Amino acid sequence: MQTPLYRRAPVSLAPVNDEARIRAASLLAVDMARYLEGVGDLAYMNQALESLEPPKRAQVFGYLPLARQAALVKALPPPALGELLQALAADERADLLNHVDEALRQRLLPALAQAERDDVLRLCSYQEGTAGALMTSEYSWLPAQLSAAEAIGVLRGQAGEAETIYQNYILDGERRLLGTLSLRQLILAPEAEALENLMVTPVVHARVDTPAEEVARLISDYDLLALPIVDAQARLVGIVTCDDAMDVVVEHATEDFHKGASIAQHIGNLKTASVSLLYRKRVFWLVLLVFGNLFSGAGIAAFEDVIASNIALVFFLPLLVDSGGNAGAQSATLMVRALATGEVVLRDWLGLLRRECAVALALGCTMALAVSTLGLVRGGTDIAVIVASSMLVIVLVGSLIGMSLPFAFSRLKLDPATASGPLITSIADAAGVLVYFGIASQVLEL
Amino acid sequence: MQTPLYRRAPVSLAPVNDEARIRAASLLAVDMARYLEGVGDLAYMNQALESLEPPKRAQVFGYLPLARQAALVKALPPPALGELLQALAADERADLLNHVDEALRQRLLPALAQAERDDVLRLCSYQEGTAGALMTSEYSWLPAQLSAAEAIGVLRGQAGEAETIYQNYILDGERRLLGTLSLRQLILAPEAEALENLMVTPVVHARVDTPAEEVARLISDYDLLALPIVDAQARLVGIVTCDDAMDVVVEHATEDFHKGASIAQHIGNLKTASVSLLYRKRVFWLVLLVFGNLFSGAGIAAFEDVIASNIALVFFLPLLVDSGGNAGAQSATLMVRALATGEVVLRDWLGLLRRECAVALALGCTMALAVSTLGLVRGGTDIAVIVASSMLVIVLVGSLIGMSLPFAFSRLKLDPATASGPLITSIADAAGVLVYFGIASQVLEL
Repeated sequence: MQTPLYRRAPVSLAPVNDEARIRAASLLAVDMARYLEGVGDLAYMNQALESLEPPKRAQVFGYLPLARQAALVKALPPPALGELLQALAADERADLLNHVDEALRQRLLPALAQAERDDVLRLCSYQEGTAGALMTSEYSWLPAQLSAAEAIGVLRGQAGEAETIYQNYILDGERRLLGTLSLRQLILAPEAEALENLMVTPVVHARVDTPAEEVARLISDYDLLALPIVDAQARLVGIVTCDDAMDVVVEHATEDFHKGASIAQHIGNLKTASVSLLYRKRVFWLVLLVFGNLFSGAGIAAFEDVIASNIALVFFLPLLVDSGGNAGAQSATLMVRALATGEVVLRDWLGLLRRECAVALALGCTMALAVSTLGLVRGGTDIAVIVASSMLVIVLVGSLIGMSLPFAFSRLKLDPATASGPLITSIADAAGVLVYFGIASQVLEL
Repeated sequence: MQTPLYRRAPVSLAPVNDEARIRAASLLAVDMARYLEGVGDLAYMNQALESLEPPKRAQVFGYLPLARQAALVKALPPPALGELLQALAADERADLLNHVDEALRQRLLPALAQAERDDVLRLCSYQEGTAGALMTSEYSWLPAQLSAAEAIGVLRGQAGEAETIYQNYILDGERRLLGTLSLRQLILAPEAEALENLMVTPVVHARVDTPAEEVARLISDYDLLALPIVDAQARLVGIVTCDDAMDVVVEHATEDFHKGASIAQHIGNLKTASVSLLYRKRVFWLVLLVFGNLFSGAGIAAFEDVIASNIALVFFLPLLVDSGGNAGAQSATLMVRALATGEVVLRDWLGLLRRECAVALALGCTMALAVSTLGLVRGGTDIAVIVASSMLVIVLVGSLIGMSLPFAFSRLKLDPATASGPLITSIADAAGVLVYFGIASQVLEL
C-alpha cells in the first residue's frame, strides 16, 4: 500500500509537543497562525496567507492576534480585502471591526456585501462581555414543518456556512426558538417524521445581554456544543460555541488570578506585555496598600511605650500579623473561587460563617500552641501568654475578615475577586497590631 | 395550531436563572440531578430514577456526585444494577468503579457483561490525572476503505452508543489512527469517494499518559470537539470530549487558586466540605509559614539596638515589608498563571527577568516617592532617606523573588503554583527586615 505519510503521521507526532505542532504547521490552521506569529514579519505573513486557499486563509487569519489582523488588513488592496473579510467567521469579523480605528473601519465596511455589513454592525453593537458580543450569527436553523429527510438536505446546503450543523434550532415564522434537534437525533429519526414531533424542548438558552461568564457556565453545566442566544422578543439571533466558552473560562480565571494579587485586569499575553503596561496595571494597588498600611503604623505609634519597655515584642510582630493575613488570604481565596464557579451564592454566607468560626478556632489553637513554645524560649511565661493569645485572636479575626469581604463586595455589586490577598493582608496587619500590643499592654501592666 | 407548550417554553424560560432551571427539571438530565441532590433523600432518589427510561436514568445518575452514586448502587438489586451500569457512559462507569470500596466493586463487576467488564477494568487502570483516566472508550471509528455513503450508514448504527459521532476516526486493520473526518465533511463529500481520500491528516492527538491539563489545552487550542487518545503502539484507545476538557480547565484553575493562597489542593465542593477537611488542608502551610517568619524575627532581634535607639522606625516596618510581599505576590501570580496556561515556558525566564527589573524599578521609585513624604513628616530627613531607599530595594528584591520562584519550582519539577502569595510574603518579609534595618543602621550611625 502506498499510504506511508498518514499511516506514520500519528506515530511520529506522539507525544504531542511544541516541535510536533510546528511540524504540523503546513496542515493545521492554529499551528500555521502560531508559526507566522512567531516569525513576526508582516510581508512574509501576507505572502504566506496569499498562498493559501481562501477558506484556509480566513481560518489562519482568524487565529492571529487582533492587533496583527488589523496590521495585515491595512496593507491589503480592496479586492483581496473583500475576499478575506467575506470568508471570515461572523464573530471574528465583528471582533476585528471592534478592534480597529475609525479610519480603517470605514475602509473595511465597504469591502463587505450589504447582508454581511448589516450582520457585522449588529454583532458589533453588543456590549463587550455579554452573550451578544461573544456569539456568531452563523447558526443552522430549520423550519418546524420539514421532515427529517428534508432537514438533512437543508443542512447539507448550510454545512459550508454555519459554525456548527451538529446542533440545529427549530424556529417559527417569526424566528422564535421552538426547540432543538442534534444532527445525531436527526439521522436516527424516521425519514418522514416532522421536526416539530422530533425536536427537544425546552431549550437551554441565554439572552444577548447575559454576561459571558454565565454563558460559559451554562455550556459547561449542560455539556452543550453550542448555546442559542435570543433577543428580548425570544427570537434566535446567534449561538455561542463551546470552544468560545472554553476561552471565556480560561480568560476569566486569569483575570481572577490577577485580581487575587491586586493586579488590575486585562494584561493580555504576559510574554508580549510592555514594561509600561505592567507598571500601570500594578502600581495603583501597590501605592494604595502603602497608605492602607499606615493604619498598622498608627497602631504601632500608639503603643510605642509598650514596645520601648519590652523591645523583645518586636521579634514576634511579623510572625503574628502575617499569620492573620495568611489565614485571611486562604479564606478569601476559597470564597472568591467558590463564588466565581457558582458553588456558593450570597445567601450561603451565614451558614459558611459558622463553619469558618470552627475552622479558624482550630487553626488558631494549633498555631497558638506552636508560638507559645517560641515565646517561652525567647521571653518567658508572660511573653508566651501574650503571643499565644494574640495568635488565637489574630487568626480568628483574619479568617473572618477574609471570608466575609468577598461576600461584602459581592453584596455591593462589586467583583468579589477584589478581596485580594494583599488587601486582606493589609487589613489583617492593622487588626493584628492592635490585638497584639493591646494584649501585651494589658498583660505586662498587670 | 395546537403547539402551545414548546412555542411558549423559551419565552417563559428567559432569562435563564435558578428558578428556570428547576422548572426545566422534568426535562433536562443535569437539572434533574441537581434537583435530586438538593432533596438529598436516597429513597426518594431511587424512586425518581426508577420512574425514568433507562437511557435518561443513566444520564441523570451520571450527573450525581460520585459519593451519591456509590450510595445509590449499594441499595440496588442485581438486575436493576446491571441495567443501570450497562446504560452508563464508559468513562462514568470507570469513575464510579474507581470511587467505590473493594467490596462494592466486587458486586458491581459481575453485573456487567464480559465486554463491558474488560473495558471498564482497562479504563480504571490508567493513573488519575492522565488522558487515560479522562477518556471514554465510546468513540466512533470507520475503516479507511469505506465510501462516504457507506460510512454514513455505519454511523447511523453507532449513533446510539458513541459519545460523539461528529468527529470520526479512520483506523487501519491494527486499529492505528490514520486520519479523522467530521460528520460535516462526510455529508458534504461525494457519496462514492473512499474515506482514505477524504480524511484529514495528521491528527492532533495525545497518549494515554499525557497529563489531563495538556489534553485540555490541546482541545482548547485546536478548538476540537474531541481529542483522540492513542496507546504506546499508536492504536486508538479512546477520546476525551470537549465538555470533559472544560471540567478539567475549571478544576485545575480552582486548584491553582487554592495553592496561590497556600491551601493544599482537592477541597472538592466548598459548600459541603467539613470543618476537619478544611482544617487539614489549611493548617500545614500556616504553621510552616509561622516558622518561616522566624527569619524576620531573627532579623529584628539582630537590630534590637537600632530599633531601641529610634523607636519611630517600627512605624514604617509593616508598610515596608508588606510592600515587598505585595509586589512579589503580583509578579509570582503573573508568572504562575502564564506558566499554567502555557503563555510562558521555562526558557523565557531570562528575557522576562530583564523586563521585570525595569518594571520593579519603576514601581519602587513611585513607592519610594510616596513614603519619603511620610518619612519627612514623621521623622525628618534621615528617616525619609532611610524609608525611601529601603522601599526601592525592598520592592526590587520582592519582585525578583516573586518572578523567579515559580520558574525555580518549575525547573525542580515542582508545581509552580506552590510559589504562593503567603510564601513570597514570608520570604520578602525577612529580606525586607534586613534591608530596612541594615540601611537604617548605616544612615543613623554616619
